[in-house]
Amino acid sequence: MINISFPDGAVRQYEAGVTALDIAKSISEGLARKVLAASVNGQVWDATRPITTDSALKLHTWDDAEGKNTFWHSSAHLMAEAVEAMYPGVKFWVGPALDKGFYYDIDLGGNHISEEDLAAIEKKMNELAKQNNPYQRKEISKSEAVSYFTDKSDQYKLDLLQGLEDGSITFYSQGQFTDLCRGPHIPHTGFIKAIKLTSIAGAYWKGDEKNKMLTRLYGVTFPNQKELDEYIQMLEEAKKRDHRKLGKELGIFTMDDDVGAGLPLWLPNGTVIIEELEKLAKQTEEAAGYKRVVTPHIAKESMYLTSGHLPYYADSMFPPMELDGTKYYLKAMNCPHHHKIFDAEPKSYKDLPFRIAEYGTCYRYEQSGELFGLMRVRCLHMNDAHIYCSKEQFAAEFRAVNEMYIKYFKIFGIDKYVMRLSLHEPTKLGAKYVNEPELWKETETMVRNVLIESDIPFVEVPDEAAFYGPKIDVQIWSAIGREFTLATNQVDFNSGNKFKLNYVNQNNQPEVPLIIHRAPLGTHERFIGFLLEHYAGKFPVWLAPLQVKILPISDKFMDYANQVKDTLKSVGVRVEIDDRSEKIGKKIRDTELSRVPYMLVVGEKEAAEKQLSVRRQGKGDLGTQSLDTFVTMIQDEILHRKAAE
Amino acid sequence: MINISFPDGAVRQYEAGVTALDIAKSISEGLARKVLAASVNGQVWDATRPITTDSALKLHTWDDAEGKNTFWHSSAHLMAEAVEAMYPGVKFWVGPALDKGFYYDIDLGGNHISEEDLAAIEKKMNELAKQNNPYQRKEISKSEAVSYFTDKSDQYKLDLLQGLEDGSITFYSQGQFTDLCRGPHIPHTGFIKAIKLTSIAGAYWKGDEKNKMLTRLYGVTFPNQKELDEYIQMLEEAKKRDHRKLGKELGIFTMDDDVGAGLPLWLPNGTVIIEELEKLAKQTEEAAGYKRVVTPHIAKESMYLTSGHLPYYADSMFPPMELDGTKYYLKAMNCPHHHKIFDAEPKSYKDLPFRIAEYGTCYRYEQSGELFGLMRVRCLHMNDAHIYCSKEQFAAEFRAVNEMYIKYFKIFGIDKYVMRLSLHEPTKLGAKYVNEPELWKETETMVRNVLIESDIPFVEVPDEAAFYGPKIDVQIWSAIGREFTLATNQVDFNSGNKFKLNYVNQNNQPEVPLIIHRAPLGTHERFIGFLLEHYAGKFPVWLAPLQVKILPISDKFMDYANQVKDTLKSVGVRVEIDDRSEKIGKKIRDTELSRVPYMLVVGEKEAAEKQLSVRRQGKGDLGTQSLDTFVTMIQDEILHRKAAE
Repeated sequence: MINISFPDGAVRQYEAGVTALDIAKSISEGLARKVLAASVNGQVWDATRPITTDSALKLHTWDDAEGKNTFWHSSAHLMAEAVEAMYPGVKFWVGPALDKGFYYDIDLGGNHISEEDLAAIEKKMNELAKQNNPYQRKEISKSEAVSYFTDKSDQYKLDLLQGLEDGSITFYSQGQFTDLCRGPHIPHTGFIKAIKLTSIAGAYWKGDEKNKMLTRLYGVTFPNQKELDEYIQMLEEAKKRDHRKLGKELGIFTMDDDVGAGLPLWLPNGTVIIEELEKLAKQTEEAAGYKRVVTPHIAKESMYLTSGHLPYYADSMFPPMELDGTKYYLKAMNCPHHHKIFDAEPKSYKDLPFRIAEYGTCYRYEQSGELFGLMRVRCLHMNDAHIYCSKEQFAAEFRAVNEMYIKYFKIFGIDKYVMRLSLHEPTKLGAKYVNEPELWKETETMVRNVLIESDIPFVEVPDEAAFYGPKIDVQIWSAIGREFTLATNQVDFNSGNKFKLNYVNQNNQPEVPLIIHRAPLGTHERFIGFLLEHYAGKFPVWLAPLQVKILPISDKFMDYANQVKDTLKSVGVRVEIDDRSEKIGKKIRDTELSRVPYMLVVGEKEAAEKQLSVRRQGKGDLGTQSLDTFVTMIQDEILHRKAAE
Repeated sequence: MINISFPDGAVRQYEAGVTALDIAKSISEGLARKVLAASVNGQVWDATRPITTDSALKLHTWDDAEGKNTFWHSSAHLMAEAVEAMYPGVKFWVGPALDKGFYYDIDLGGNHISEEDLAAIEKKMNELAKQNNPYQRKEISKSEAVSYFTDKSDQYKLDLLQGLEDGSITFYSQGQFTDLCRGPHIPHTGFIKAIKLTSIAGAYWKGDEKNKMLTRLYGVTFPNQKELDEYIQMLEEAKKRDHRKLGKELGIFTMDDDVGAGLPLWLPNGTVIIEELEKLAKQTEEAAGYKRVVTPHIAKESMYLTSGHLPYYADSMFPPMELDGTKYYLKAMNCPHHHKIFDAEPKSYKDLPFRIAEYGTCYRYEQSGELFGLMRVRCLHMNDAHIYCSKEQFAAEFRAVNEMYIKYFKIFGIDKYVMRLSLHEPTKLGAKYVNEPELWKETETMVRNVLIESDIPFVEVPDEAAFYGPKIDVQIWSAIGREFTLATNQVDFNSGNKFKLNYVNQNNQPEVPLIIHRAPLGTHERFIGFLLEHYAGKFPVWLAPLQVKILPISDKFMDYANQVKDTLKSVGVRVEIDDRSEKIGKKIRDTELSRVPYMLVVGEKEAAEKQLSVRRQGKGDLGTQSLDTFVTMIQDEILHRKAAE
């Protein structure tokens, strides 16, 4: 008999050789039908693999990341099986799971697959899935494995085998397909109920353009058709809401070859949004006791040697500018500059927490292939701030930062979010992580407690902390359900030492402050990219570049239109008149297209009675209102940053 | 007889050989006593030099730049005469006039001069000045000049002679001193009535550190003692108001070795001023129809090859960052980025004038020796904007820009300013200036007319235009009379062509826009440096980093103090409580020192009656006010950006 302990602390006895699936069945058949994999002592295993020693067990289903990951990896094998059946002799490189779906890189030999062939492959996959073929794990010696793939003249798997050690090699088979694979896999193919192959691309073997071009087939699968349908609909909606398309249509930003890739130029409409976001951030931060600073975009090499960004982070930075024997770097982060501001004037415990904020612009050299609209850029306007505090102040400060995130989410109508608490891995202290075991324990506990006390949904991720402390990554979902990683909230108990920062504590002794790095609104680039999709370009009034368009039915009503415009302008509303000689129907259609929240139609009746015919974007005619009523309403909507409905 | 024409257009006849001084005497003895030099056909001459042909004449006095320049150049010669008399055998390199005063570079041989010796030299200069020695001009052949200085073994003047052509060489003598000099000079030493030698410095011969170190003696002189006294007082006041000293005391900015020289870090108090200035600029620009944009701080080499900044301006730019075969430069100006924004979307005449503004941060590589506090820096936050307009719109746009300058000057209490209209030099078309003679004529006339019509004081400066068009430099004087060059307003009829910018005009034809570059508030760096001196750190309330300090007489009144603070905060006033356990007298003294405009003393009586004892920085006790009265008053003062009194 062996002891199996569960996440809730319960321990039960089973016979040695029991599988996670057996255990699930012992709890309930319903549960067993959902189990895709299991963590055994922290390692993700097949649910069907025998457990032979006392173990900590966690079952994985479609509801968790490990479950999905296993599901999609098994789906890649299923796709490979289908492709091999349809195109005999093809060879496979690697086929990993992705954040959403999976791919497999394939050497098609003399065959060719085009978009039109995807449906047939899907059909074959569905047919194979219905066979409920189990995924079978087999440990195999290196020499056997080599001889197996030598027989098949499969140079790809032979190349993979070179890097593997004898004793650690496994094959997985389902149906007619066998692959060299670490696993784990789902119990059988029947779990895969809905299949969509999404695209084909070329991919150089090992990502090296000197190598042969392989065919990369992308797909996504689900345990039911409904989820697939929703996903496809989301993709179609996302295409319509593509921030690059909307960004151009709405005059938000542009890119220019002479400026450089990944370096957006913000057009007037985009700049209005930037300024409204900065205004929100400044008001929020001021109320939370932050002070503002402004720092240069460059610094000498010595600063980044102190911070440790050089040489480790050098690849992500622009190369240095060398003059008169000094190397200057474009800043890739604002922290070192802020540390210098902390250090500029002596501090005592009375000055703490010292919170300084800056919409600082950083530059990072992303590879050309990685650049993507506003989502992956080389220029980042960051909603940055650093909080220098004592250990006693830390929990309250960290909680306040989290609350600020939630406050923003409410304003932007972000209903779905999760915080990922990234922890250190004790065996990597001194290498990947600062060697301060006590401080890690202490701060991780503090952060976890804050999250629990604030009742914020979060997951814990081992071995993903920053070098200098635990961090929280915030994942948010747009209105159409697409996931974005927004920003981080990080603890740093290392930079204070590196920069020799200190304050005089209550015992008149110098003490190194803890530092919190935080950026709730992330960067303008990514956040405005997100908002374009989230709102489909239909910004709430407070964010809309143009808030009101006045549509005079004819030139005769220009005087009244101007009067309305002046009144609105005087209370700070962004307003224009459509003074073209077009029919009112066309004016309304064009204004709808440009996503202006309010249209005010003015004609004979309105001018005579000093009224307005009010139309709301997406809602249509709101009827007739007096100018005063409209002004009061729109001012209220702007002041309270009301959501678009 | 020759015809002499005067600036007012009058023409009078004189005998050939008449001097400017003779002519002045023929007008009035009073005028003659003031004449220091004269422009004869545009060249500045000795007032005592015979005029032999028909000429255009302009007399120069202490009231104009040419008069002062001649006066100080002659003073340098007077100083040289005194030094030679006191230290026989010294040799002289060059002795030019400066913006304020003059210097002479001297090889003292075996002698030494220290600060203590300056009074004795001043005394000798005064003695020689009183001799009323005339400055005498003598044309001399190169061979005679060479032989004269060979006899004196004067390698410095021999070196200068090498660069001169026979026929163009003149000596000037006064008293016992003779110098190789192009002139001109004042009539005699008696004009110099007040003398102050200000400092001694070392200066390498020809500025090359491999050469011998010469002694540079600086001085300043005036035609009367009163002006010298005022000048000395201004220098002393300027020392107290030194922006570097105040910048540190008031927590405005700091510099850091690891960031780099000339790269200020703006501390929280300085950032408040930056944000208030930006708010002012944004409000003003918005009302004037500008739109805002945001552009990156770097661009590819190709952009600066198009603009022509490379290679010509390369020395002033940071060197490129090269990656993947592309060179990126930190921007030294915002114009090319703005041109790209103009070009991002097609424009018609209906879109013009297209005015785009950005507080753009530029980087220029000033030599280390040139860096000076906030006045000469490598990072410039520029109050930039570009206006793209048609020729017909130009005059109105240019006038509006000038009016914006004047509006700002009123807000900041800048009573003294002059615009310098820099014109092209027709003989340098195609070389120093774009070869567009007609456009030069047209735009210079337009600019001049705008200045005349707007009744703005201005001077014309030939041969100082930008490469691409005429420009206006704005000179302002601080409250203590020190001059600053603030910013420029430039016409550009060249960049439109270079960047292939155009709009569709009313005839449906593409047309290149005229461009106005303007930056009325200059850079944050220089403008805040100026303001620190101008206000001696005593900012008007709207600009003051901290506007109100509440001084409770004891801890007992903290509740009421907090109540007052919350009320003020709720209407946006920047307020703090001095909660130290100090006597009220010390609290008041400390707050005075930190230049907070308002102090509110609260004690027993105030708390009981909900009143405040109000003190105004520099004015003292303003008596007791209710909180409401104070709130109304300070809000009004802030809203209207009232001047500090």
